[in-house]
Amino acid sequence: MTGVRKGYIRPLDLRQGRVDMTHGSGGRAMAQLIDELFASRLGNAYLRQGNDAAVLPMPPGRLVMSTDAHVVSPLFFPGGDIGCLAVHGTINDVAVMGATPLYLAATFILEEGFPLADLARIVDSMAAAAGDAAVPVVTGDTKVVEKGMADGVYITTTGVGVVTEGEEFSGDRARPGDRIIVSGTIGEHGMAIMAQRESIGFSAPIVSDTAALHGLIAAMRASGATIRVLRDPTRGGVATTLNEIARQSRVGMMLHESALPVQPAVAAACEFLGLDPLYVANEGKLLAIVAPGDADSLLNAMRAHPLGRRAALIGSVHQDAQHFVQMTTAFGGRRIVDWLTGEQLPRIC
Amino acid sequence: MTGVRKGYIRPLDLRQGRVDMTHGSGGRAMAQLIDELFASRLGNAYLRQGNDAAVLPMPPGRLVMSTDAHVVSPLFFPGGDIGCLAVHGTINDVAVMGATPLYLAATFILEEGFPLADLARIVDSMAAAAGDAAVPVVTGDTKVVEKGMADGVYITTTGVGVVTEGEEFSGDRARPGDRIIVSGTIGEHGMAIMAQRESIGFSAPIVSDTAALHGLIAAMRASGATIRVLRDPTRGGVATTLNEIARQSRVGMMLHESALPVQPAVAAACEFLGLDPLYVANEGKLLAIVAPGDADSLLNAMRAHPLGRRAALIGSVHQDAQHFVQMTTAFGGRRIVDWLTGEQLPRIC
Repeated sequence: MTGVRKGYIRPLDLRQGRVDMTHGSGGRAMAQLIDELFASRLGNAYLRQGNDAAVLPMPPGRLVMSTDAHVVSPLFFPGGDIGCLAVHGTINDVAVMGATPLYLAATFILEEGFPLADLARIVDSMAAAAGDAAVPVVTGDTKVVEKGMADGVYITTTGVGVVTEGEEFSGDRARPGDRIIVSGTIGEHGMAIMAQRESIGFSAPIVSDTAALHGLIAAMRASGATIRVLRDPTRGGVATTLNEIARQSRVGMMLHESALPVQPAVAAACEFLGLDPLYVANEGKLLAIVAPGDADSLLNAMRAHPLGRRAALIGSVHQDAQHFVQMTTAFGGRRIVDWLTGEQLPRIC
Repeated sequence: MTGVRKGYIRPLDLRQGRVDMTHGSGGRAMAQLIDELFASRLGNAYLRQGNDAAVLPMPPGRLVMSTDAHVVSPLFFPGGDIGCLAVHGTINDVAVMGATPLYLAATFILEEGFPLADLARIVDSMAAAAGDAAVPVVTGDTKVVEKGMADGVYITTTGVGVVTEGEEFSGDRARPGDRIIVSGTIGEHGMAIMAQRESIGFSAPIVSDTAALHGLIAAMRASGATIRVLRDPTRGGVATTLNEIARQSRVGMMLHESALPVQPAVAAACEFLGLDPLYVANEGKLLAIVAPGDADSLLNAMRAHPLGRRAALIGSVHQDAQHFVQMTTAFGGRRIVDWLTGEQLPRIC
């Protein structure tokens, strides 16, 4: 991100102004947008280097890299917005590998006519989330497309982190006998979006759980428990994420419906809309597969952290050549928890 | 990127098929798209790790990180397409810092209804560009938005590289007396896009110069010349990039119009459209600021490389408290080469 000489053009109108095509042209208007709207909010020594790439100190270890495009609709929802979501989601993808998240890069695709006030609010939210997580946005890029060629703003974030060689997690390490833990109640993010999108007023408001999980993960590691796999159940929810792990690790899983933590408001909303909370996206929860003898100590460590207070043991891993995820239901039956096959909730993140 | 069990759904129809909303839902259709269209083309050991983040070996040094969103229109143009452009652009932003590019991450925002055949062609082009450059795509993400909410496909790439501490370049190191070199003829990328977009048939076809420059840069470093600044003049062209450097380094610059290498077809097209090639985007060129005594040896090293054959000395750096970039014209006059103020060419990259 580069700057512009001051005094040549009027300051951005952050109340009434709108994105126009000149903000993406590479010229003075773009430099002004970057200076006055982005750099002033996200500012840090790396971003201020002012080159097309940031040069960053790097501790020894394996590099962990993850990237996510964010197209959530609506852009603002109970509990968050696309800005903090884009920070949390990418930090979490780095952190569930066992890595310490270090830096973020961000690109913005802006639709012509998008209100600068909304953009400023989103960047404020990113800055707050990045600040809270102590993971700075070190480089970025902005493009503008014509009205009707986007939906306000799309944000891609890329995160890098570092992990000591041999200490990284991977989805292929679950073993028969391992226990399955979820860090808290499920389905809040997806249902918060749905409620906002469909203008459904549930009796109790549902708030997205969007949060950065690297602090919780650090507490989990500090417990000394033998963690085999960590993953955040975002798109596709707990069901899809566990199927991915079962497939990678070539194991089966058995969940217990009665053990799944679900807020009553989420359960009611899911029932009303005909959705299964197992398939609804989370943005501040993780699944942990842990060695059987360490499940209790890990649960205790998680419950001592603000983001793990409602952590629960929800199932276990067993041998299964077909890699099925199954669930014992509240009525004593058993059913397959399949991959999400159709479209449940588009543009949830 | 994660996969899916085989045998449950029909293979993707890469001839007649189109992107639909299920390809972004996190379920089986998305996993199939990733397996059959992305991973099969971009495949490498890191991508096949199958987790939400890649774990990567990292040599010691400073981490260099850059990111770019690509929204070029049209998606296919003479000399390239959005796929190879997204690879080259980000590699170049890392390489001009003096770093060795190591890894790329890529996100795709797909419009519902986009032909899978076109997507496959784009990913093939990315794979070829990444392969030629020896910089693999190690992780990625795919989102789908409704028809009318994008323009086919937008691609964000993020690159990381490594540079020995103290050997990185920066835009603030130009000094009075330094020479300014451009690696070849200017304006081809922008004019190739314009010709395609406006369906203008110029007598000679103009082909984008899109290319990865890290090989050329390695040859330049090997020459031993004292290079102060490197930068690729993309959006806003040579004029805007030199203004950025002049501002960062707090110097003035003087260019010589007669020394600027421009292909006759590009010069004619620019004249026809009322554009100045100094402001037209390049995607395979770089500007180098070099210590005065090393300009000749650097030029020789550049001209010995296929991407630097038409390298030219185009000007010099001097003291100027106002940081103006000026140019002596072919008629003996002198003019200010200002920042690009309005919109010249939208969605050029």
